[in-house]
Amino acid sequence: MQIGPYSFETFCEKVTEFHGYIAPGVILGGFMVSVGQQFLPADAIYDVICESRKCLPDAVQLLTPCTIGNGWLKILDVGRFALVLYDKNSGAGVRVWVDAEKLGQWPMINDWFFQLTPKSLQNKTELLQQIQAAGTDILNSAKIQIAPEFLRQHKHQGILVCPQCHEPYPVEHGTTCKVCQGFRLPYTLHR
Amino acid sequence: MQIGPYSFETFCEKVTEFHGYIAPGVILGGFMVSVGQQFLPADAIYDVICESRKCLPDAVQLLTPCTIGNGWLKILDVGRFALVLYDKNSGAGVRVWVDAEKLGQWPMINDWFFQLTPKSLQNKTELLQQIQAAGTDILNSAKIQIAPEFLRQHKHQGILVCPQCHEPYPVEHGTTCKVCQGFRLPYTLHR
Repeated sequence: MQIGPYSFETFCEKVTEFHGYIAPGVILGGFMVSVGQQFLPADAIYDVICESRKCLPDAVQLLTPCTIGNGWLKILDVGRFALVLYDKNSGAGVRVWVDAEKLGQWPMINDWFFQLTPKSLQNKTELLQQIQAAGTDILNSAKIQIAPEFLRQHKHQGILVCPQCHEPYPVEHGTTCKVCQGFRLPYTLHR
Repeated sequence: MQIGPYSFETFCEKVTEFHGYIAPGVILGGFMVSVGQQFLPADAIYDVICESRKCLPDAVQLLTPCTIGNGWLKILDVGRFALVLYDKNSGAGVRVWVDAEKLGQWPMINDWFFQLTPKSLQNKTELLQQIQAAGTDILNSAKIQIAPEFLRQHKHQGILVCPQCHEPYPVEHGTTCKVCQGFRLPYTLHR
């Protein structure tokens, strides 16, 4: 079973290099991306939505042209381990998610996924072996249609300098930047 | 002038491979990450905050161990082209941002940054040459201190199966998942 263009072992190496360690969630995410890609035409130009910010986005960034910085990957973090791939133009696509019921047949994956085993007691080698063996068997998928208003590009209307903090910000945010409007960033600055 | 461990040309290749094309924002972001790293001890274990979701996060993901999927990179999108690197434990760190005033000396960068030139009329080769020549000269930096409550790890309290949609979700979200609570995702599902 391939994960995108990679063998399981090569994908594990890619994950270590990018994500810092072999996270089971990124490996499982790799199978999910692969399933999604099979639903799209080979030449499809697609965007991706991740329904969790954990692990999944890195599988997408490793296996597709979609990154968080180029905007083709979006995270709508509702905490569900699911992703959506869709044609940029038509909005036709597929959602792939982990099927909770099917996890019952894979006790180690089930215990990891539902956080029933403390990390210190996890046997990671066996967990990864189960994820490899389960592959796409624990996943579900369904066709979806993206809402037209979400597809439309929100073009920037220009950049202004904030009259309060003197930093550039997008004009559509208002007469000052969001921080000067009260959005609290979690740091104090020593100028 | 190096960008992290890379020459300017090698970094451009890395950006093309990951981001899909040589985005001036990712190149500029590369200089910003490099400046930030110089403020931290060589062995520092640090997290990153991007104040914009555009381009910057990809520079961080290419040049640091911090990715969106491993959680060491966070995006607090207030639309300002700035990033913060800080020690995971102490919260001491640095903010790096583009200094709007200094852009006046670099007309092509200024026109690109403030979106004064339509993309079709941009001379991208010259723009990239100016960004390379300007390097860190158009940046500013200052020490910051992260708020203690932001540093504390928010550990998951467990995963439940949502009684409505039957999908797993984090228990701290409530008695159902966020979607079943009314968070609208931009697609319709055909089961």
